[in-house]
Amino acid sequence: MAAAGLLSMGLSQAQAAEQVDMEMVGKIRQEAFHHSQVSQTLQHLTEQIGPRLTNSPNMAKANAWTRQQFKDWGLANVHDEAFDDFGRGWEFRSASLELLSPRAQPLHAVPKAWTPGTQGPVEGEAILVSAKTPKDLDKYKGQLRGKIVLLSEAREYKPGTEPDTQRYDEAGLTELLSFSVPKDVKPEDKAKRLKDYRERQEMTAAQNKFLVEEGALAALSISGWDNGILRVGGGGSRRAGESVGVPELAVAAEHYNPLVRALQRKETVRLRLNSDADFTSQSNDPGYNTIAELPGSGKAEEVVMLGAHMDSWHAGTGASDNGAGVAVMMEAIRILKAVGAKPKRTIRVALWSGEEQGLIGSGEYVKQHLAAYPEPTDPEQKKLPAYFREPTGELQRTKEYGKFAAYFNLDNGSGRIRGIYAQENSAVMPIFESWLAPFNDLGATIVTSRNTGSTDHISFDRVGLPGFQFVQDRLDYSTNVHHSDLDTYDHAMPEDLKQAAAVIASFAYNAAMREEKLPRKPLLKE
Amino acid sequence: MAAAGLLSMGLSQAQAAEQVDMEMVGKIRQEAFHHSQVSQTLQHLTEQIGPRLTNSPNMAKANAWTRQQFKDWGLANVHDEAFDDFGRGWEFRSASLELLSPRAQPLHAVPKAWTPGTQGPVEGEAILVSAKTPKDLDKYKGQLRGKIVLLSEAREYKPGTEPDTQRYDEAGLTELLSFSVPKDVKPEDKAKRLKDYRERQEMTAAQNKFLVEEGALAALSISGWDNGILRVGGGGSRRAGESVGVPELAVAAEHYNPLVRALQRKETVRLRLNSDADFTSQSNDPGYNTIAELPGSGKAEEVVMLGAHMDSWHAGTGASDNGAGVAVMMEAIRILKAVGAKPKRTIRVALWSGEEQGLIGSGEYVKQHLAAYPEPTDPEQKKLPAYFREPTGELQRTKEYGKFAAYFNLDNGSGRIRGIYAQENSAVMPIFESWLAPFNDLGATIVTSRNTGSTDHISFDRVGLPGFQFVQDRLDYSTNVHHSDLDTYDHAMPEDLKQAAAVIASFAYNAAMREEKLPRKPLLKE
Repeated sequence: MAAAGLLSMGLSQAQAAEQVDMEMVGKIRQEAFHHSQVSQTLQHLTEQIGPRLTNSPNMAKANAWTRQQFKDWGLANVHDEAFDDFGRGWEFRSASLELLSPRAQPLHAVPKAWTPGTQGPVEGEAILVSAKTPKDLDKYKGQLRGKIVLLSEAREYKPGTEPDTQRYDEAGLTELLSFSVPKDVKPEDKAKRLKDYRERQEMTAAQNKFLVEEGALAALSISGWDNGILRVGGGGSRRAGESVGVPELAVAAEHYNPLVRALQRKETVRLRLNSDADFTSQSNDPGYNTIAELPGSGKAEEVVMLGAHMDSWHAGTGASDNGAGVAVMMEAIRILKAVGAKPKRTIRVALWSGEEQGLIGSGEYVKQHLAAYPEPTDPEQKKLPAYFREPTGELQRTKEYGKFAAYFNLDNGSGRIRGIYAQENSAVMPIFESWLAPFNDLGATIVTSRNTGSTDHISFDRVGLPGFQFVQDRLDYSTNVHHSDLDTYDHAMPEDLKQAAAVIASFAYNAAMREEKLPRKPLLKE
Repeated sequence: MAAAGLLSMGLSQAQAAEQVDMEMVGKIRQEAFHHSQVSQTLQHLTEQIGPRLTNSPNMAKANAWTRQQFKDWGLANVHDEAFDDFGRGWEFRSASLELLSPRAQPLHAVPKAWTPGTQGPVEGEAILVSAKTPKDLDKYKGQLRGKIVLLSEAREYKPGTEPDTQRYDEAGLTELLSFSVPKDVKPEDKAKRLKDYRERQEMTAAQNKFLVEEGALAALSISGWDNGILRVGGGGSRRAGESVGVPELAVAAEHYNPLVRALQRKETVRLRLNSDADFTSQSNDPGYNTIAELPGSGKAEEVVMLGAHMDSWHAGTGASDNGAGVAVMMEAIRILKAVGAKPKRTIRVALWSGEEQGLIGSGEYVKQHLAAYPEPTDPEQKKLPAYFREPTGELQRTKEYGKFAAYFNLDNGSGRIRGIYAQENSAVMPIFESWLAPFNDLGATIVTSRNTGSTDHISFDRVGLPGFQFVQDRLDYSTNVHHSDLDTYDHAMPEDLKQAAAVIASFAYNAAMREEKLPRKPLLKE
């Protein structure tokens, strides 16, 4: 109720200023709901192509297929854009892990990305390595040859006391409308985070090298989640020239814990494993974003962008993270083309790569086209991710920076849109409230002043450009599917994808048609 | 609150009649909570022995190990009791399923029990067989040779809207105190159920035979649950002389549905599978229950029984179903021995086999020792499970029948005891309320008049003997673990097992000490 109250207040202020072409809204909704292709698109990406790890052969297939789709739909300027020096490609075809003794049992496991394959089945005894620092490894010298190393401790099962699948109720939406004034960042906290980051990097490199030198056959670690779910990202290294360590698999918690307990009981644990995984290139290859446009007329040089990352992790098929976002963004521009929209500004869609490794595809795109801080000259600084670097000087803006109208992102699963994060950009809030009004009946109601992070709109936001991510129903994103083997087509909700495509097509059209580009917020200096 | 009100009323009525030895309760609680062995017992059963399919080599190991434990604890009359003609043994050591084309992906799958192995990896194209009746199979004649048959349709994902793990709250317990007067069973409903049962039996037999005759390589069906969980029972046949069909695996829903969709898109689906499964005997061998006693003195020929089934399905390790019940019943009698209890009546523990195939171990035990209806002479009737048979005459009672005091069962997972089902035996209710009172502080509070079914107390209940199953917190029994690959040690709750052992040790002692045996309810005639 409180939410509705706040909304109507927002709307009455905004509607004076913002015009929404309701005839266009009607056309968009009809195309989105009655001629949808969004599920077919998602099914192709997930089940005909499969998982799309950055720089994997499947990612290249996805770039090619989405280009062809965009062309078939009559879009313009369809092409891939490279960003240099991402790293090596990798893929896996199959993987198996079997307990041989003290009893026989197949174990549920999947390789970590960018770890080497086993070149056929290997067998060995398990040994638990408990090491937090490179020094801790020393006591295992001479003990690992021919062994399969357990890298994680056992972990206690956490009973699930919330429903797997959740949607926002009124109370949840109302809560999202509140804003917490941020605490000062203490310099010592920042220094601590940097120190922790460096230590983790050093430990990973040291451990990879140690396991290879000591002749370990392979390594196992516990999956990030319980309930047999394989939640896993990368291991080894994607960078040519760095040690990739030994073959490493993440094992279902229910199958991993018993191995540790058997060792604690002093039993001999023998395992057989096979990881049919390969690096598909030997050099630090570029990654590729796929781009397509619906050209504007009148203000064609001004750009509204839609984006979602097409790369995924490899255990599932990247359906909710983020085939859903890709399918919705493709559907949004397909809808606009299909209904004959003639936007004044150019609407450009980007299907990013390298998001899972740190928003790399979108970050490099922004650097190349829009704005960048000077590169650090200190080689130590160069090695760090952007958020750990010292300030290097003034933001360098391209001519396109001034022509950039807005960026909209979708990457919080397949859940329907319930609103949008304004990222503390107060001036856009009444505008977005007007734009959401025709979709209130579909549950899309709130504009929150809050920031949200962790996906590609941040690449725009951090250079002062208006970049936004929508508020989405969580569904089972953070219980079942995020970076897991359950991130598959069946867990994506088709009606939610249709709704999201309609909202986003309309947002893109509004942003392309309004008199002014979207207002910007002041650039934060660090 | 209502629950508490009802309870106190019950207690005040009952306490006049029932004496509870609170000194013994104190000893039992201390042994159960501070010197517990229940988790070690469960860990041994699940992780050192593993799954315990009826008549499998692991079940024999469990019979042997539990006998030794009982002996080590100083119990008497420890032995196995055979029940004839159960069927063949079966076990599997490993299983793998891989999608080879249109793309490469390992698929999560486990063989159905009592299906043959593949004798090494086999490869073939997938074909969907949609058949509900033996006649429906005809149209696939000549099409299945060398193929891997998909037996299930695709199934839509059901989002989980309740927490995985649940415990009773006050409202839930209060609700359990209400009793629904049963509807009349319509003869036509009973006839329909019998017809459906016969048709299912015929279809299974016809399908097994058809797939073998047509030269299908193997068959796949969809797991009973979503979220990657492998929920599976038996296929093929455990009976020597019947067709066991072709190797059959249950496949995770998220991996099965895409196979069906690929076939619907007219893609060629190639699979490789390997099921290292074997029948471990060729004849209809007997099954074995393990029995142990704490002998009574004074009324030693009268018997109080505790029981839980030790057999399990094979996908997990049978922790919640029903290693938990076995570990608790073993612990309960261990506690009584450890605290030096001298019961008047004999307390006997039975670890049943064949429960999962229809309460067979306990049913045969009751027939041999206590009571049985005459065997049908009609061979058609003989083939049917007890609940479908026509009445055959008066119940035949042994001398032991008159000496039987009570049977208590535990088989609803590892969740703590919240009360007990009185099975419409009104006279036991105030007695049980008195017995529960010292455990109210542990959440064990209610005596419900309701019936509960589906486990071994029914073997006693249906011949008019007082047999009871406790009310237990559900935990994740019916969301994650029941008959699934997640039925593992980590999902069992150690504190709950300790609580249950204390309650049951006390119930057994009370039943062995009270002046009279437990009151019986009238025998239902059908």
